Amino acid sequence: MSFDRLIKGIIKTQNPTVAGLDPKLDFLPDYIKEEAFAKYGKNLEGAAEALFEFNKGLIDALYDIVPAVKPQAAYYEMYGWYGVRTLQKTIEYAKSKGMFVITDGKRNDIGTTMQAYANAHLGTTEVEGERFEAFGSDALTVNGYLGTDGVKPVVDVCKENDKGLFILIKTSNPSSGELQDRILDDNLTIYRTMGDMCEKWGEELKGESLYSGVGAVVGATYPEQLGELRKALPHTFFLVPGYGAQGGGAKDVAPAFDENGLGAIINSSRGIMCAWKKEEGLNPKEYAQAARREAIRMRDEIVSYIGEIKG
Amino acid sequence: MSFDRLIKGIIKTQNPTVAGLDPKLDFLPDYIKEEAFAKYGKNLEGAAEALFEFNKGLIDALYDIVPAVKPQAAYYEMYGWYGVRTLQKTIEYAKSKGMFVITDGKRNDIGTTMQAYANAHLGTTEVEGERFEAFGSDALTVNGYLGTDGVKPVVDVCKENDKGLFILIKTSNPSSGELQDRILDDNLTIYRTMGDMCEKWGEELKGESLYSGVGAVVGATYPEQLGELRKALPHTFFLVPGYGAQGGGAKDVAPAFDENGLGAIINSSRGIMCAWKKEEGLNPKEYAQAARREAIRMRDEIVSYIGEIKG
Repeated sequence: MSFDRLIKGIIKTQNPTVAGLDPKLDFLPDYIKEEAFAKYGKNLEGAAEALFEFNKGLIDALYDIVPAVKPQAAYYEMYGWYGVRTLQKTIEYAKSKGMFVITDGKRNDIGTTMQAYANAHLGTTEVEGERFEAFGSDALTVNGYLGTDGVKPVVDVCKENDKGLFILIKTSNPSSGELQDRILDDNLTIYRTMGDMCEKWGEELKGESLYSGVGAVVGATYPEQLGELRKALPHTFFLVPGYGAQGGGAKDVAPAFDENGLGAIINSSRGIMCAWKKEEGLNPKEYAQAARREAIRMRDEIVSYIGEIKG
Repeated sequence: MSFDRLIKGIIKTQNPTVAGLDPKLDFLPDYIKEEAFAKYGKNLEGAAEALFEFNKGLIDALYDIVPAVKPQAAYYEMYGWYGVRTLQKTIEYAKSKGMFVITDGKRNDIGTTMQAYANAHLGTTEVEGERFEAFGSDALTVNGYLGTDGVKPVVDVCKENDKGLFILIKTSNPSSGELQDRILDDNLTIYRTMGDMCEKWGEELKGESLYSGVGAVVGATYPEQLGELRKALPHTFFLVPGYGAQGGGAKDVAPAFDENGLGAIINSSRGIMCAWKKEEGLNPKEYAQAARREAIRMRDEIVSYIGEIKG
């Protein structure tokens, strides 16, 4: 139940990070693109096939040292249904290597529609009495603006299928405060109010650990709020974007963790995917090894702040 | 620019409604399912192909009297990438019949990621210097919880491609008030604050009409707020869900319109899609004709409250 599987992976690898798989064509070595374009054409299909090859290489290089991947749905939808097929194949491949997969889709709706999203990404879909996995991810990011009607259907699917969700609380972008930092009439911020709702929703998804299956997205770019929320939300596991390219460093994300080094997973996307571009003279065919080196550097940097991760 | 094309369609058909295409397998006549399953198997692919046939029949029966369709992404994602392919084919087919297509995806993210969603659904994707339409819809629903960083990229893509967006303000579900009705420290509700942001964002997407290309989603189930927001947001076009199955009636949605009968489009999904189940003794092969009859009934009911729609 809940995030127990994710937490086990973090402890096993002693690595509280997740590799974001948000591949743009620009991030790919030419040889991968050329091969795919030759086979499928210079079009959405060719691009989508190139992305899958790239992801596969990254997963092969990372699965024993990084516990999770986080594909961002937008970068797959860009390539139409071909791209969405690559998303599905990427999830399947990462799971076959034992990784925990978080689909970053920020989905939101109500009632049976939200249930459809939850079944799509975390559960199963019934066709004539038989059930099929559409995407089969382990966790999904969710936008909670619609309230309980938009979250409860996901919690129910998570309960049945041993999955989890992360609700957006305080996002990493500069303008996140326009709404999220506004003060309500009880003197709490909107992001804190959303956080309190996560604690409440999480009561239905308790696992073996302290943390429920209802996590929260809190940006690395707001270290003060990270610390505030860690104290205020003791059962809410954090997914922390904004490390690296967006400006957050290891010191900034340290407040997201509890005294056991648990309670958060830090995402890096471009830092890992584009590491090969930063190593001078590197053969592009070794892009995945460069990603592995960056993942190890990031792990060591973060662990130097939080120490050994204890179960 | 903006919603001018949608508004022209509404005036031409004298019908301010949109047919929601949220097809569940249960909504389909058996003969469509049987044919698709025989050809593609009783699986996600067979289901997705059946949904497309069903949609096609509905579009054929509605395109001359209903100006727009609104496919809900969740019901397609449920069937994996096969379902997403049906979404793309449905959009293409509806556009070929001259309908305005609103993809109800409630997408949200920031910066280049939000740009990827906008390109996916409303713009084009570049592959080696050539640009391809991934989904090619006319408008997209967007969740604005992340602030301007999450909306500006969509506005930019809309500007370039003559498209529009609808931001969630006050949703139709019972628990929408948990967050959206909360009062901020300036005594305004969150939904009103989000509405004011729509007016501001809309300044960049002005068209020929009074209304900008940044619309808002306001539920039919909250008629009082509909009226309040119509007055407060004179340049914001409303997409109104919740009519019919969710309990809103024609009287409830009347306050969404201005004195010219413009300013809003009312969605009906189940009411239209499942009309054939309510006509006793109907041959299921005539499901689309039943949908047409219900669409005409709905149009006449709404127009009886708002009168002639003037350009």
